[in-house]
Amino acid sequence: MKLVLGIDGGGTSCRAALATADGTVIGRAKSGAANIRTDLTGARANILDAARQAFVAAGQDSELIPQTPAILGLAGANVGTYRKQLEAILPFSVSRVETDAEIALEGAVGSGDGAMAILGTGTAYMARKAGKSRAIGGWGFQVGDQGSGARIGRDLLEQTLLAYDGIRQGSPLTQAMLAIFRDNPEDLVEFTTNAKPGDFGGFAPKVFDHAEKGDAVANWILDKAVADVEAALGVLDLGDDDPLCLLGGLAPLYAPRLSARYRALLKPPLDDALGGAVQMAVRVFAKAAEAAR
Amino acid sequence: MKLVLGIDGGGTSCRAALATADGTVIGRAKSGAANIRTDLTGARANILDAARQAFVAAGQDSELIPQTPAILGLAGANVGTYRKQLEAILPFSVSRVETDAEIALEGAVGSGDGAMAILGTGTAYMARKAGKSRAIGGWGFQVGDQGSGARIGRDLLEQTLLAYDGIRQGSPLTQAMLAIFRDNPEDLVEFTTNAKPGDFGGFAPKVFDHAEKGDAVANWILDKAVADVEAALGVLDLGDDDPLCLLGGLAPLYAPRLSARYRALLKPPLDDALGGAVQMAVRVFAKAAEAAR
Repeated sequence: MKLVLGIDGGGTSCRAALATADGTVIGRAKSGAANIRTDLTGARANILDAARQAFVAAGQDSELIPQTPAILGLAGANVGTYRKQLEAILPFSVSRVETDAEIALEGAVGSGDGAMAILGTGTAYMARKAGKSRAIGGWGFQVGDQGSGARIGRDLLEQTLLAYDGIRQGSPLTQAMLAIFRDNPEDLVEFTTNAKPGDFGGFAPKVFDHAEKGDAVANWILDKAVADVEAALGVLDLGDDDPLCLLGGLAPLYAPRLSARYRALLKPPLDDALGGAVQMAVRVFAKAAEAAR
Repeated sequence: MKLVLGIDGGGTSCRAALATADGTVIGRAKSGAANIRTDLTGARANILDAARQAFVAAGQDSELIPQTPAILGLAGANVGTYRKQLEAILPFSVSRVETDAEIALEGAVGSGDGAMAILGTGTAYMARKAGKSRAIGGWGFQVGDQGSGARIGRDLLEQTLLAYDGIRQGSPLTQAMLAIFRDNPEDLVEFTTNAKPGDFGGFAPKVFDHAEKGDAVANWILDKAVADVEAALGVLDLGDDDPLCLLGGLAPLYAPRLSARYRALLKPPLDDALGGAVQMAVRVFAKAAEAAR
Protein backbone atom coordinates (compact mmCIF):
# COMPACT_ATOMS: atom_id res chain seq x y z
CA MET A 1 0.00 0.00 0.00
CA LYS A 2 1.32 3.40 -1.01
CA LEU A 3 1.20 6.01 1.77
CA VAL A 4 1.58 9.82 1.85
CA LEU A 5 2.23 12.29 4.69
CA GLY A 6 0.73 15.70 5.27
CA ILE A 7 2.41 18.03 7.78
CA ASP A 8 1.11 21.32 9.17
CA GLY A 9 3.74 23.11 11.23
CA GLY A 10 3.36 26.42 13.01
CA GLY A 11 4.65 28.53 15.85
CA THR A 12 3.02 26.47 18.60
CA SER A 13 2.66 22.91 17.27
CA CYS A 14 3.23 20.53 14.39
CA ARG A 15 0.55 18.12 13.20
CA ALA A 16 1.05 15.14 10.92
CA ALA A 17 -1.48 12.94 9.09
CA LEU A 18 -0.65 9.65 7.37
CA ALA A 19 -3.00 8.79 4.50
CA THR A 20 -3.51 6.10 1.88
CA ALA A 21 -3.21 6.89 -1.80
CA ASP A 22 -6.91 7.80 -2.01
CA GLY A 23 -6.53 10.41 0.75
CA THR A 24 -8.06 8.39 3.60
CA VAL A 25 -6.30 9.47 6.80
CA ILE A 26 -5.26 6.40 8.81
CA GLY A 27 -3.15 8.05 11.55
CA ARG A 28 -2.71 11.46 13.13
CA ALA A 29 -0.23 12.90 15.62
CA LYS A 30 0.94 16.17 17.12
CA SER A 31 4.26 17.49 18.43
CA GLY A 32 5.92 20.82 19.29
CA ALA A 33 6.55 24.00 17.31
CA ALA A 34 7.83 23.92 13.72
CA ASN A 35 8.64 27.45 12.59
CA ILE A 36 11.60 26.96 10.25
CA ARG A 37 12.51 30.63 10.36
CA THR A 38 13.00 30.85 14.11
CA ASP A 39 14.37 27.31 14.78
CA LEU A 40 15.24 25.10 11.81
CA THR A 41 16.72 22.13 13.68
CA GLY A 42 14.01 22.20 16.34
CA ALA A 43 11.41 22.28 13.57
CA ARG A 44 13.02 19.26 11.88
CA ALA A 45 12.98 17.29 15.17
CA ASN A 46 9.30 18.05 15.81
CA ILE A 47 8.36 17.21 12.21
CA LEU A 48 10.03 13.79 12.49
CA ASP A 49 8.47 13.21 15.91
CA ALA A 50 4.96 13.95 14.59
CA ALA A 51 5.56 11.80 11.48
CA ARG A 52 6.78 8.80 13.50
CA GLN A 53 3.86 9.06 15.90
CA ALA A 54 1.42 9.22 12.98
CA PHE A 55 2.84 5.92 11.66
CA VAL A 56 2.44 4.39 15.16
CA ALA A 57 -1.14 5.72 15.46
CA ALA A 58 -1.93 4.10 12.09
CA GLY A 59 -0.42 0.77 13.18
CA GLN A 60 2.25 1.14 10.50
CA ASP A 61 5.99 0.54 10.76
CA SER A 62 7.84 3.87 10.96
CA GLU A 63 10.72 2.19 9.10
CA LEU A 64 8.63 3.05 6.02
CA ILE A 65 9.31 6.80 6.50
CA PRO A 66 12.18 6.87 3.93
CA GLN A 67 9.77 5.42 1.33
CA THR A 68 6.96 7.90 2.09
CA PRO A 69 6.61 11.27 0.33
CA ALA A 70 5.46 14.33 2.31
CA ILE A 71 3.91 17.74 1.77
CA LEU A 72 4.85 20.13 4.57
CA GLY A 73 3.14 23.46 5.10
CA LEU A 74 5.34 25.42 7.47
CA ALA A 75 5.38 28.83 9.11
CA GLY A 76 8.43 30.79 7.97
CA ALA A 77 8.66 29.03 4.59
CA ASN A 78 7.94 32.31 2.79
CA VAL A 79 11.17 33.96 3.93
CA GLY A 80 14.76 33.41 2.87
CA THR A 81 16.21 29.98 2.02
CA TYR A 82 14.91 28.03 5.04
CA ARG A 83 12.63 25.99 2.79
CA LYS A 84 15.48 24.60 0.66
CA GLN A 85 17.67 24.04 3.72
CA LEU A 86 14.99 21.96 5.41
CA GLU A 87 14.11 19.94 2.30
CA ALA A 88 17.76 18.86 2.11
CA ILE A 89 17.77 17.37 5.63
CA LEU A 90 14.38 15.61 5.79
CA PRO A 91 14.23 11.78 5.59
CA PHE A 92 11.06 11.39 3.48
CA SER A 93 11.25 9.87 -0.03
CA VAL A 94 10.27 13.27 -1.41
CA SER A 95 9.91 16.41 0.76
CA ARG A 96 8.05 19.40 -0.56
CA VAL A 97 7.89 22.39 1.75
CA GLU A 98 5.10 24.92 1.17
CA THR A 99 4.02 27.92 3.22
CA ASP A 100 1.39 27.40 5.90
CA ALA A 101 -0.87 29.68 3.84
CA GLU A 102 -0.53 27.47 0.75
CA ILE A 103 -1.79 24.31 2.50
CA ALA A 104 -4.53 26.32 4.24
CA LEU A 105 -5.70 27.48 0.80
CA GLU A 106 -5.57 23.90 -0.56
CA GLY A 107 -7.59 22.76 2.46
CA ALA A 108 -10.14 25.56 2.12
CA VAL A 109 -10.83 25.59 -1.63
CA GLY A 110 -9.17 22.42 -2.98
CA SER A 111 -6.75 22.34 -5.88
CA GLY A 112 -8.60 24.64 -8.29
CA ASP A 113 -8.96 28.40 -8.49
CA GLY A 114 -10.13 30.16 -5.36
CA ALA A 115 -9.14 32.41 -2.50
CA MET A 116 -9.08 32.71 1.24
CA ALA A 117 -9.06 35.66 3.57
CA ILE A 118 -7.71 35.06 7.07
CA LEU A 119 -9.54 37.55 9.29
CA GLY A 120 -8.42 37.25 12.88
CA THR A 121 -6.07 39.18 15.16
CA GLY A 122 -4.15 39.76 11.92
CA THR A 123 -5.25 39.64 8.29
CA ALA A 124 -3.75 37.91 5.25
CA TYR A 125 -4.99 36.79 1.85
CA MET A 126 -4.12 34.15 -0.71
CA ALA A 127 -5.59 33.28 -4.09
CA ARG A 128 -4.89 30.63 -6.71
CA LYS A 129 -5.56 31.30 -10.39
CA ALA A 130 -4.69 28.71 -13.06
CA GLY A 131 -2.42 26.89 -10.63
CA LYS A 132 -0.50 30.00 -9.58
CA SER A 133 -0.79 31.25 -5.99
CA ARG A 134 -0.44 34.78 -4.78
CA ALA A 135 -0.28 35.91 -1.15
CA ILE A 136 -0.82 39.49 0.02
CA GLY A 137 -1.08 41.24 3.36
CA GLY A 138 -0.06 39.71 6.66
CA TRP A 139 2.52 42.42 7.41
CA GLY A 140 1.59 42.69 11.06
CA PHE A 141 -0.30 45.06 13.26
CA GLN A 142 1.96 48.13 13.34
CA VAL A 143 1.93 49.04 9.62
CA GLY A 144 -0.28 46.33 8.08
CA ASP A 145 -3.11 43.89 8.85
CA GLN A 146 -5.78 46.40 7.85
CA GLY A 147 -9.22 45.19 8.96
CA SER A 148 -7.75 42.87 11.60
CA GLY A 149 -9.04 42.56 15.14
CA ALA A 150 -5.89 44.32 16.36
CA ARG A 151 -6.44 47.29 14.03
CA ILE A 152 -10.16 47.49 14.86
CA GLY A 153 -9.33 47.52 18.58
CA ARG A 154 -6.62 50.15 18.11
CA ASP A 155 -9.01 52.28 16.05
CA LEU A 156 -11.60 52.05 18.81
CA LEU A 157 -9.14 53.29 21.45
CA GLU A 158 -8.07 56.14 19.16
CA GLN A 159 -11.67 57.20 18.49
CA THR A 160 -12.41 57.00 22.22
CA LEU A 161 -9.65 59.54 22.94
CA LEU A 162 -10.81 61.78 20.09
CA ALA A 163 -14.32 61.69 21.56
CA TYR A 164 -12.91 62.52 25.01
CA ASP A 165 -11.20 65.60 23.53
CA GLY A 166 -14.40 66.58 21.71
CA ILE A 167 -12.74 66.17 18.31
CA ARG A 168 -15.27 63.56 17.24
CA GLN A 169 -18.79 62.80 18.39
CA GLY A 170 -18.80 60.10 21.07
CA SER A 171 -21.17 57.13 21.19
CA PRO A 172 -22.34 54.49 23.65
CA LEU A 173 -19.34 52.40 22.53
CA THR A 174 -16.72 55.11 23.21
CA GLN A 175 -18.38 55.81 26.58
CA ALA A 176 -18.28 52.10 27.45
CA MET A 177 -14.60 51.94 26.47
CA LEU A 178 -13.65 54.94 28.59
CA ALA A 179 -15.56 53.43 31.52
CA ILE A 180 -13.36 50.30 31.23
CA PHE A 181 -10.44 52.63 31.97
CA ARG A 182 -12.20 54.27 34.95
CA ASP A 183 -13.11 57.24 32.71
CA ASN A 184 -9.42 58.19 32.77
CA PRO A 185 -7.77 58.67 29.36
CA GLU A 186 -4.33 58.38 31.03
CA ASP A 187 -5.20 54.80 32.02
CA LEU A 188 -6.26 54.04 28.44
CA VAL A 189 -2.98 55.40 27.08
CA GLU A 190 -1.05 53.44 29.73
CA PHE A 191 -2.76 50.24 28.50
CA THR A 192 -1.59 50.85 24.93
CA THR A 193 2.06 51.23 26.00
CA ASN A 194 2.62 47.50 26.34
CA ALA A 195 -0.47 46.09 24.59
CA LYS A 196 0.14 43.25 22.16
CA PRO A 197 -1.93 42.81 18.95
CA GLY A 198 -4.08 40.25 20.77
CA ASP A 199 -4.81 42.77 23.53
CA PHE A 200 -6.08 45.33 21.02
CA GLY A 201 -7.92 42.57 19.14
CA GLY A 202 -9.78 41.60 22.29
CA PHE A 203 -11.97 44.69 21.81
CA ALA A 204 -12.95 43.86 18.21
CA PRO A 205 -16.02 41.67 18.95
CA LYS A 206 -17.37 44.57 21.07
CA VAL A 207 -17.16 46.81 17.98
CA PHE A 208 -19.15 44.33 15.86
CA ASP A 209 -21.69 44.00 18.72
CA HIS A 210 -22.24 47.73 19.01
CA ALA A 211 -22.33 48.20 15.23
CA GLU A 212 -25.20 45.73 15.13
CA LYS A 213 -27.07 47.97 17.59
CA GLY A 214 -26.50 51.02 15.37
CA ASP A 215 -23.57 52.63 17.22
CA ALA A 216 -22.20 55.38 14.93
CA VAL A 217 -18.52 55.07 15.93
CA ALA A 218 -18.62 51.26 15.69
CA ASN A 219 -20.13 51.45 12.21
CA TRP A 220 -17.60 54.08 11.13
CA ILE A 221 -14.73 51.83 12.24
CA LEU A 222 -16.21 48.74 10.55
CA ASP A 223 -17.09 50.55 7.31
CA LYS A 224 -13.39 51.43 7.05
CA ALA A 225 -12.34 47.87 7.97
CA VAL A 226 -14.68 46.32 5.39
CA ALA A 227 -13.40 48.75 2.74
CA ASP A 228 -9.82 47.71 3.61
CA VAL A 229 -10.67 44.01 3.37
CA GLU A 230 -12.46 44.50 0.05
CA ALA A 231 -9.54 46.55 -1.32
CA ALA A 232 -7.31 43.53 -0.66
CA LEU A 233 -9.86 41.12 -2.15
CA GLY A 234 -10.03 43.37 -5.21
CA VAL A 235 -6.34 42.77 -5.94
CA LEU A 236 -6.94 39.00 -5.96
CA ASP A 237 -9.03 39.45 -9.12
CA LEU A 238 -11.55 36.70 -8.34
CA GLY A 239 -13.73 35.24 -11.09
CA ASP A 240 -17.50 34.95 -10.64
CA ASP A 241 -17.24 31.21 -9.93
CA ASP A 242 -14.13 31.26 -7.71
CA PRO A 243 -14.84 30.08 -4.18
CA LEU A 244 -13.86 32.53 -1.42
CA CYS A 245 -13.34 31.18 2.11
CA LEU A 246 -13.20 33.43 5.16
CA LEU A 247 -11.06 31.95 7.93
CA GLY A 248 -10.07 33.22 11.38
CA GLY A 249 -12.03 34.37 14.40
CA LEU A 250 -13.66 37.39 12.75
CA ALA A 251 -14.81 35.45 9.64
CA PRO A 252 -18.44 34.94 10.79
CA LEU A 253 -18.65 38.60 11.86
CA TYR A 254 -17.33 39.90 8.53
CA ALA A 255 -19.37 37.62 6.24
CA PRO A 256 -22.71 39.50 6.47
CA ARG A 257 -20.95 42.87 6.08
CA LEU A 258 -19.24 42.18 2.75
CA SER A 259 -20.76 43.63 -0.40
CA ALA A 260 -23.04 41.42 -2.51
CA ARG A 261 -20.29 40.73 -5.05
CA TYR A 262 -18.13 38.96 -2.43
CA ARG A 263 -20.99 37.44 -0.41
CA ALA A 264 -21.99 35.59 -3.59
CA LEU A 265 -18.57 33.90 -3.72
CA LEU A 266 -18.46 32.75 -0.07
CA LYS A 267 -18.10 29.00 0.53
CA PRO A 268 -17.38 27.17 3.77
CA PRO A 269 -13.84 25.73 3.80
CA LEU A 270 -13.67 22.10 2.54
CA ASP A 271 -11.04 21.14 5.10
CA ASP A 272 -8.40 22.58 7.44
CA ALA A 273 -4.70 23.18 6.67
CA LEU A 274 -3.60 19.64 7.65
CA GLY A 275 -6.30 18.23 5.36
CA GLY A 276 -4.94 20.56 2.68
CA ALA A 277 -1.44 19.11 3.08
CA VAL A 278 -2.84 15.57 2.77
CA GLN A 279 -4.92 16.41 -0.30
CA MET A 280 -1.93 18.11 -1.92
CA ALA A 281 0.22 15.04 -1.17
CA VAL A 282 -2.38 12.76 -2.79
CA ARG A 283 -2.61 15.08 -5.79
CA VAL A 284 1.14 15.52 -6.24
CA PHE A 285 2.46 12.08 -5.30
CA ALA A 286 -0.20 9.34 -5.41
CA LYS A 287 -2.07 10.51 -8.50
CA ALA A 288 1.16 11.33 -10.32
CA ALA A 289 2.42 7.81 -9.60
CA GLU A 290 -0.86 6.34 -10.83
CA ALA A 291 -0.75 8.37 -14.03
CA ALA A 292 2.82 7.22 -14.65
CA ARG A 293 1.89 3.54 -14.33
CA MET B 1 14.34 94.96 44.93
CA LYS B 2 11.52 92.46 44.50
CA LEU B 3 12.52 89.36 42.51
CA VAL B 4 10.54 86.52 40.87
CA LEU B 5 11.57 83.08 39.61
CA GLY B 6 10.45 81.26 36.48
CA ILE B 7 11.16 77.52 36.21
CA ASP B 8 10.78 75.26 33.17
CA GLY B 9 11.25 71.59 34.07
CA GLY B 10 11.07 68.67 31.69
CA GLY B 11 12.21 65.10 31.17
CA THR B 12 15.80 66.01 30.32
CA SER B 13 16.57 69.29 32.09
CA CYS B 14 15.33 72.05 34.34
CA ARG B 15 15.91 75.74 33.53
CA ALA B 16 15.49 78.64 35.93
CA ALA B 17 15.40 82.40 35.29
CA LEU B 18 15.56 85.05 38.01
CA ALA B 19 13.88 88.34 37.05
CA THR B 20 13.14 91.74 38.50
CA ALA B 21 9.57 92.89 39.10
CA ASP B 22 9.35 94.35 35.57
CA GLY B 23 10.28 91.00 33.97
CA THR B 24 13.92 91.76 33.19
CA VAL B 25 15.85 88.50 33.49
CA ILE B 26 19.04 89.03 35.54
CA GLY B 27 20.23 85.42 35.91
CA ARG B 28 19.73 82.05 34.20
CA ALA B 29 20.77 78.49 35.08
CA LYS B 30 20.15 74.88 34.10
CA SER B 31 20.18 71.56 35.95
CA GLY B 32 18.99 67.98 35.48
CA ALA B 33 15.55 66.45 34.77
CA ALA B 34 12.44 67.63 36.60
CA ASN B 35 9.54 65.36 35.69
CA ILE B 36 7.47 65.29 38.88
CA ARG B 37 5.51 62.26 37.79
CA THR B 38 8.50 59.95 37.34
CA ASP B 39 10.73 61.31 40.16
CA LEU B 40 9.28 63.85 42.58
CA THR B 41 12.25 64.16 44.99
CA GLY B 42 14.78 64.22 42.14
CA ALA B 43 12.72 66.94 40.46
CA ARG B 44 12.68 68.98 43.68
CA ALA B 45 16.48 68.70 44.02
CA ASN B 46 17.07 69.83 40.43
CA ILE B 47 14.58 72.69 40.75
CA LEU B 48 16.41 74.00 43.85
CA ASP B 49 19.78 73.52 42.17
CA ALA B 50 18.72 75.55 39.11
CA ALA B 51 17.13 78.25 41.32
CA ARG B 52 20.24 78.62 43.49
CA GLN B 53 22.49 78.82 40.43
CA ALA B 54 20.25 81.49 38.88
CA PHE B 55 20.72 83.63 42.03
CA VAL B 56 24.48 83.13 41.79
CA ALA B 57 24.49 83.99 38.07
CA ALA B 58 22.58 87.19 38.88
CA GLY B 59 25.06 88.10 41.63
CA GLN B 60 22.26 87.78 44.19
CA ASP B 61 22.33 86.05 47.58
CA SER B 62 20.54 82.70 47.36
CA GLU B 63 19.48 83.23 51.01
CA LEU B 64 16.73 85.30 49.41
CA ILE B 65 15.08 82.16 48.00
CA PRO B 66 12.52 81.85 50.84
CA GLN B 67 11.41 85.42 50.06
CA THR B 68 11.08 84.86 46.30
CA PRO B 69 7.89 83.63 44.63
CA ALA B 70 8.12 81.17 41.72
CA ILE B 71 6.05 79.92 38.80
CA LEU B 72 7.06 76.40 37.82
CA GLY B 73 5.97 74.76 34.56
CA LEU B 74 6.68 71.06 34.97
CA ALA B 75 6.26 67.89 32.93
CA GLY B 76 3.90 65.49 34.71
CA ALA B 77 1.97 68.27 36.46
CA ASN B 78 -1.19 67.34 34.55
CA VAL B 79 -1.47 63.92 36.20
CA GLY B 80 -2.52 62.91 39.68
CA THR B 81 -1.63 64.90 42.81
CA TYR B 82 2.09 65.43 42.14
CA ARG B 83 1.57 69.15 41.70
CA LYS B 84 0.13 69.64 45.21
CA GLN B 85 2.74 67.34 46.76
CA LEU B 86 5.56 69.36 45.23
CA GLU B 87 4.09 72.75 46.12
CA ALA B 88 4.08 71.64 49.79
CA ILE B 89 7.83 70.88 49.86
CA LEU B 90 9.28 73.81 47.88
CA PRO B 91 11.14 76.61 49.75
CA PHE B 92 9.93 79.61 47.69
CA SER B 93 7.75 82.29 49.31
CA VAL B 94 4.93 81.19 47.03
CA SER B 95 5.17 78.17 44.70
CA ARG B 96 2.71 77.77 41.87
CA VAL B 97 3.13 74.65 39.76
CA GLU B 98 1.66 74.70 36.25
CA THR B 99 1.96 72.21 33.42
CA ASP B 100 4.81 72.61 30.95
CA ALA B 101 2.15 73.31 28.30
CA GLU B 102 0.67 76.18 30.32
CA ILE B 103 3.97 78.13 30.52
CA ALA B 104 4.71 77.33 26.86
CA LEU B 105 1.35 78.90 25.96
CA GLU B 106 2.07 81.95 28.16
CA GLY B 107 5.45 82.29 26.44
CA ALA B 108 4.01 81.91 22.96
CA VAL B 109 0.92 84.13 23.10
CA GLY B 110 1.24 86.06 26.36
CA SER B 111 -1.45 86.30 29.02
CA GLY B 112 -4.44 86.92 26.77
CA ASP B 113 -6.57 84.67 24.59
CA GLY B 114 -4.71 82.53 22.08
CA ALA B 115 -3.62 79.03 21.22
CA MET B 116 -0.62 76.92 20.38
CA ALA B 117 -0.22 73.72 18.41
CA ILE B 118 2.87 71.64 19.15
CA LEU B 119 3.62 69.82 15.90
CA GLY B 120 6.67 67.59 16.28
CA THR B 121 7.29 63.89 16.80
CA GLY B 122 4.02 64.10 18.77
CA THR B 123 1.16 66.61 18.64
CA ALA B 124 -0.65 68.52 21.40
CA TYR B 125 -2.76 71.68 21.61
CA MET B 126 -3.62 74.28 24.18
CA ALA B 127 -5.82 77.36 24.08
CA ARG B 128 -6.75 80.09 26.52
CA LYS B 129 -10.10 81.82 26.34
CA ALA B 130 -11.12 84.46 28.90
CA GLY B 131 -8.37 83.28 31.26
CA LYS B 132 -9.34 79.62 31.11
CA SER B 133 -6.93 77.14 29.50
CA ARG B 134 -7.83 73.95 27.75
CA ALA B 135 -5.37 71.27 26.59
CA ILE B 136 -6.22 68.52 24.11
CA GLY B 137 -4.30 65.78 22.34
CA GLY B 138 -0.84 64.62 23.28
CA TRP B 139 -1.95 61.05 23.95
CA GLY B 140 1.07 59.48 22.28
CA PHE B 141 1.88 57.77 19.06
CA GLN B 142 0.04 54.46 19.36
CA VAL B 143 -3.56 55.74 19.64
CA GLY B 144 -3.15 59.52 19.47
CA ASP B 145 -0.85 62.29 18.18
CA GLN B 146 -2.71 62.52 14.87
CA GLY B 147 -0.75 64.61 12.38
CA SER B 148 2.54 64.08 14.24
CA GLY B 149 5.82 63.17 12.60
CA ALA B 150 5.54 59.69 14.09
CA ARG B 151 2.07 59.15 12.61
CA ILE B 152 3.09 60.57 9.24
CA GLY B 153 6.11 58.23 9.14
CA ARG B 154 4.00 55.24 10.18
CA ASP B 155 1.41 56.11 7.52
CA LEU B 156 4.15 56.24 4.90
CA LEU B 157 5.42 52.76 5.80
CA GLU B 158 1.86 51.42 5.72
CA GLN B 159 1.15 52.95 2.31
CA THR B 160 4.47 51.59 1.03
CA LEU B 161 3.41 48.04 1.92
CA LEU B 162 -0.05 48.56 0.38
CA ALA B 163 1.65 49.74 -2.83
CA TYR B 164 3.95 46.68 -2.75
CA ASP B 165 0.86 44.44 -2.57
CA GLY B 166 -0.81 46.37 -5.39
CA ILE B 167 -3.64 47.50 -3.10
CA ARG B 168 -2.86 51.15 -3.70
CA GLN B 169 -1.07 52.98 -6.49
CA GLY B 170 2.62 53.46 -5.66
CA SER B 171 4.58 56.68 -6.17
CA PRO B 172 8.19 57.86 -6.31
CA LEU B 173 8.01 58.24 -2.52
CA THR B 174 6.83 54.66 -1.83
CA GLN B 175 9.48 53.37 -4.24
CA ALA B 176 12.15 55.39 -2.46
CA MET B 177 11.00 54.04 0.89
CA LEU B 178 11.06 50.42 -0.25
CA ALA B 179 14.55 50.99 -1.67
CA ILE B 180 15.71 52.08 1.81
CA PHE B 181 14.75 48.58 2.94
CA ARG B 182 16.57 46.89 0.02
CA ASP B 183 13.22 46.48 -1.80
CA ASN B 184 12.34 43.87 0.79
CA PRO B 185 9.03 44.39 2.63
CA GLU B 186 10.15 41.90 5.30
CA ASP B 187 12.99 44.28 6.20
CA LEU B 188 10.54 47.17 6.41
CA VAL B 189 8.28 45.19 8.77
CA GLU B 190 11.30 44.16 10.84
CA PHE B 191 12.18 47.85 11.26
CA THR B 192 8.74 48.62 12.67
CA THR B 193 8.99 45.89 15.32
CA ASN B 194 11.20 47.96 17.61
CA ALA B 195 10.85 51.43 16.08
CA LYS B 196 10.23 54.27 18.54
CA PRO B 197 8.05 57.30 17.68
CA GLY B 198 11.18 59.27 16.78
CA ASP B 199 12.26 56.54 14.34
CA PHE B 200 8.93 56.76 12.49
CA GLY B 201 9.03 60.55 12.73
CA GLY B 202 12.41 60.62 11.01
CA PHE B 203 10.63 59.93 7.71
CA ALA B 204 8.17 62.83 8.04
CA PRO B 205 10.32 65.57 6.42
CA LYS B 206 10.70 63.24 3.41
CA VAL B 207 6.91 63.18 3.06
CA PHE B 208 6.70 66.99 3.09
CA ASP B 209 9.56 67.12 0.54
CA HIS B 210 7.88 64.73 -1.88
CA ALA B 211 4.48 66.36 -1.44
CA GLU B 212 6.04 69.61 -2.57
CA LYS B 213 7.11 67.85 -5.78
CA GLY B 214 3.57 66.59 -6.39
CA ASP B 215 3.93 63.01 -5.10
CA ALA B 216 0.40 61.57 -4.89
CA VAL B 217 0.95 59.34 -1.85
CA ALA B 218 2.79 62.09 0.04
CA ASN B 219 -0.05 64.53 -0.60
CA TRP B 220 -2.65 61.92 0.39
CA ILE B 221 -0.87 61.38 3.73
CA LEU B 222 -0.48 65.12 4.39
CA ASP B 223 -4.04 65.99 3.40
CA LYS B 224 -5.16 63.56 6.11
CA ALA B 225 -2.61 64.96 8.59
CA VAL B 226 -3.68 68.56 7.95
CA ALA B 227 -7.34 67.57 8.32
CA ASP B 228 -6.49 65.92 11.67
CA VAL B 229 -4.62 69.02 12.88
CA GLU B 230 -7.46 71.32 11.80
CA ALA B 231 -10.04 69.06 13.48
CA ALA B 232 -8.15 69.58 16.75
CA LEU B 233 -7.82 73.34 16.13
CA GLY B 234 -11.56 73.42 15.46
CA VAL B 235 -12.28 72.25 19.01
CA LEU B 236 -10.24 75.15 20.43
CA ASP B 237 -12.89 77.51 19.08
CA LEU B 238 -10.50 80.36 18.20
CA GLY B 239 -11.78 83.88 17.65
CA ASP B 240 -10.81 85.85 14.54
CA ASP B 241 -8.27 87.90 16.54
CA ASP B 242 -6.79 85.10 18.66
CA PRO B 243 -3.10 84.48 17.96
CA LEU B 244 -2.21 80.92 16.98
CA CYS B 245 1.41 79.77 17.40
CA LEU B 246 2.76 76.64 15.76
CA LEU B 247 5.63 75.12 17.75
CA GLY B 248 7.74 71.99 17.23
CA GLY B 249 9.91 70.74 14.39
CA LEU B 250 7.10 70.38 11.84
CA ALA B 251 5.67 73.87 12.47
CA PRO B 252 7.32 75.57 9.45
CA LEU B 253 6.30 72.65 7.20
CA TYR B 254 2.67 72.73 8.32
CA ALA B 255 2.21 76.52 8.24
CA PRO B 256 1.77 76.91 4.45
CA ARG B 257 -0.54 73.86 4.28
CA LEU B 258 -3.17 75.12 6.74
CA SER B 259 -6.41 76.53 5.38
CA ALA B 260 -6.73 80.31 5.02
CA ARG B 261 -8.84 80.59 8.19
CA TYR B 262 -5.94 79.33 10.36
CA ARG B 263 -3.11 80.86 8.32
CA ALA B 264 -4.67 84.26 9.05
CA LEU B 265 -4.29 83.64 12.81
CA LEU B 266 -0.63 82.54 12.75
CA LYS B 267 1.81 84.57 14.84
CA PRO B 268 5.42 83.82 15.73
CA PRO B 269 5.78 82.90 19.43
CA LEU B 270 6.60 85.90 21.66
CA ASP B 271 8.95 83.88 23.86
CA ASP B 272 9.83 80.32 24.90
CA ALA B 273 8.42 78.34 27.82
CA LEU B 274 10.94 79.69 30.37
CA GLY B 275 10.08 83.21 29.26
CA GLY B 276 6.44 82.25 29.75
CA ALA B 277 7.12 81.21 33.35
CA VAL B 278 8.88 84.51 34.05
CA GLN B 279 6.08 86.57 32.47
CA MET B 280 3.47 84.61 34.42
CA ALA B 281 5.45 85.20 37.64
CA VAL B 282 5.58 88.94 36.94
CA ARG B 283 1.86 88.98 36.16
CA VAL B 284 0.80 86.92 39.16
CA PHE B 285 3.23 88.11 41.86
CA ALA B 286 4.89 91.42 41.05
CA LYS B 287 1.94 93.21 39.47
CA ALA B 288 -0.45 91.82 42.11
CA ALA B 289 1.85 93.19 44.84
CA GLU B 290 1.98 96.55 43.09
CA ALA B 291 -1.81 96.68 42.78
CA ALA B 292 -2.13 95.90 46.49
CA ARG B 293 0.19 98.74 47.47
